[in-house]
Amino acid sequence: MNLYRITILSIGNEVLSGDTLNTNAAWLAARCVSLGALVVEQRTVPDHVPTIVEALADLRERCDMVITTGGLGPTHDDCTIAALIELFGDHLVLDEPTLAHLEQYAIERGRDPNSERLRSQALVPSTSQVLPNPLGTAPGLYFEPTTGAAVIVLPGVPREMKLIMEQSGFERIAAAMERRECDVVAERVLLTAGVPESELADRIEPIRRQLPSTVELAFLPSALSVRLRLRAVGKRAEVRRILDDAVSLLAPALGSAMLSDRDERLVDVLHRKCIAHGKTLAVAESCTGGMLGAEITSVPGSSSYFLGGLICYADAVKIHFGGVRPETLAQYGAVSQQTVEELARYVRAAYGSDIAVAISGIAGPSGGSDEKPVGTIWIALADERGVDARRFAFGTDRETNRVRACAAAMLMIIERLRACDG
Amino acid sequence: MNLYRITILSIGNEVLSGDTLNTNAAWLAARCVSLGALVVEQRTVPDHVPTIVEALADLRERCDMVITTGGLGPTHDDCTIAALIELFGDHLVLDEPTLAHLEQYAIERGRDPNSERLRSQALVPSTSQVLPNPLGTAPGLYFEPTTGAAVIVLPGVPREMKLIMEQSGFERIAAAMERRECDVVAERVLLTAGVPESELADRIEPIRRQLPSTVELAFLPSALSVRLRLRAVGKRAEVRRILDDAVSLLAPALGSAMLSDRDERLVDVLHRKCIAHGKTLAVAESCTGGMLGAEITSVPGSSSYFLGGLICYADAVKIHFGGVRPETLAQYGAVSQQTVEELARYVRAAYGSDIAVAISGIAGPSGGSDEKPVGTIWIALADERGVDARRFAFGTDRETNRVRACAAAMLMIIERLRACDG
Repeated sequence: MNLYRITILSIGNEVLSGDTLNTNAAWLAARCVSLGALVVEQRTVPDHVPTIVEALADLRERCDMVITTGGLGPTHDDCTIAALIELFGDHLVLDEPTLAHLEQYAIERGRDPNSERLRSQALVPSTSQVLPNPLGTAPGLYFEPTTGAAVIVLPGVPREMKLIMEQSGFERIAAAMERRECDVVAERVLLTAGVPESELADRIEPIRRQLPSTVELAFLPSALSVRLRLRAVGKRAEVRRILDDAVSLLAPALGSAMLSDRDERLVDVLHRKCIAHGKTLAVAESCTGGMLGAEITSVPGSSSYFLGGLICYADAVKIHFGGVRPETLAQYGAVSQQTVEELARYVRAAYGSDIAVAISGIAGPSGGSDEKPVGTIWIALADERGVDARRFAFGTDRETNRVRACAAAMLMIIERLRACDG
Repeated sequence: MNLYRITILSIGNEVLSGDTLNTNAAWLAARCVSLGALVVEQRTVPDHVPTIVEALADLRERCDMVITTGGLGPTHDDCTIAALIELFGDHLVLDEPTLAHLEQYAIERGRDPNSERLRSQALVPSTSQVLPNPLGTAPGLYFEPTTGAAVIVLPGVPREMKLIMEQSGFERIAAAMERRECDVVAERVLLTAGVPESELADRIEPIRRQLPSTVELAFLPSALSVRLRLRAVGKRAEVRRILDDAVSLLAPALGSAMLSDRDERLVDVLHRKCIAHGKTLAVAESCTGGMLGAEITSVPGSSSYFLGGLICYADAVKIHFGGVRPETLAQYGAVSQQTVEELARYVRAAYGSDIAVAISGIAGPSGGSDEKPVGTIWIALADERGVDARRFAFGTDRETNRVRACAAAMLMIIERLRACDG
């Protein structure tokens, strides 16, 4: 296979020592894959010239392009440029357009446009092409030596890095793949829920055997859902067809477990279905404390169906603003079927939503009992057909329990809306 | 310096292709650093035996210990064990305690305790020590060859990986550091807010020059706050003292910008101060949709001061449950000083909290105007002294704006409570 191989080199002590989560590498990898390229390695090294030079030299042996992030700032510990100069036996030249941008940038922010620290950012290796950085001071760089792997050099600030790639980085990768008439790695991602990974695997095993050997299947589990990724390698048009055929084979086997065939998250499906059915939504959140509302409103346009709701963390709030009767709390407790049902019914009526969900649980680490261990979560859904409550038994980790509770609530809403699909 | 050098090898196509964020490497790195070890490289490679063998051999040359995650499952694409067998010229043996655990594990979950797939997880390399995995089926492994770097092998599931390290992994690293009487990398992290990174740097520049050259300073910016990390290398007792002295030098220069000297997040400081002052809290969230409540309740024990509040995403909810007058919305709009002030006042009175904050803004990407561009956020804080509202102008990214709005609200609460500190 004639694939375009990419490696990603993250430079900097913040990522290396775990101070910063390496979201840059994940974003770059996912975007390179979506271009049809193959990511063959990710590496993180410290801000240390000899180490960077060695890593760059080694990685260039293993791929067609190295993408680096970090170490481009104006401070003493930024030494990526120095490493590139040494690697390519290059020297620095002043880039006038970059200098002009830097002066403009400084003036707009009321800083000194003539500071040495600022101007130093306009010095770039003579053999590099500048990839402009509209959002910051450190420009991206592109090296295309006559022999060996190309190199894209990016700042570590995510929004700067991303915009540089969007505006001038990815097109260089795409162009190189064109020139070499590369095969591509294509993929489709199916979102499933309600069926554990192992059972899912058994279900589709017969189909799996029918699939062309070129189609690679992977299960990507997350809170209460499993993303099923199909990947194939070949000529662009051809692999698209192969994957479409594979999806139409798998869909019947997955049945109702398949929520989406377009690489959506649970919240995207919820969003789409609420809009499609014209149903409005309200929530009452105890142990999740607003996490479900935050998740739903993370999607632009959610205001067309999400009204809001109640964060009823304290029992007094459940009583005075959630319509829970004091006797209910006294008799059954805050984490009970009765409590979430009263919450869901009341919030639906009061907020005038088509659907209301209520969540109350013991997230942990403390507050558990033999009868209601940590991880016990009650969720109720109320709509015009009445109220339906379910008990969930999750694990011991507080955040995991909260995330799963939100996923479970979204699933209950999605299932209810699918029922309307008839 | 006689430091203990660690490298982290992440194995798996999910991380490599950006499907999964590599939180394991960040967590392992941070924890190793907190033990006093030095993380010298992180690497991610695919589920491919020759590639894993080559990476392991190369990394072992560069450190005292390699920690690997991933590729230990029972499916065909899990091949980390095969790579270790090849690397060490080892062979598989059945580990009885692991087999017993697996059978118990299967029975508890109503699965077949005799399935081949399950039993295969009890086959481990003969030269490895098993690091038990109470939460899953793939045990961790520890290799301590007579020569060269040791290797810790972990599953990729974060909660399993973490528990194995907590229970039996980190103690092996600590023991090795003891045996070699290693120097340690020690650090202190100061949380600052309200002062941009560059200004912070200027402020402490004079002190920085007074600090021993062994103290390394780093600025770690996040939403509206900057973490200032001090790091020093040497004998444990000695570096602790050096860092304590450095902190007492820096604290006065940072002044009120310093919120904490114990590596806390904004929400941790909020938590501590609410408890210290015995103040209760309620929220009214529009554009953040519950994110502030979710953040506050992410801290165990927040129920001692956080009552809950209102997710007033729709205007009707602001009016009927947030005490906002229709005329106010009509005249000033939902994103206005008047609206957030009415929300904060009403929620404080209705919920009976000491402090209430209200957030309303234009998170984007759409909904902006010349007068109120995307990123315009109004936040009001009400307490017994009245109500205080501020307008913030953030950027264009929806999630960033929401995260910053929550940080700004937490900062307003913290500042108010510090004022009480007198």
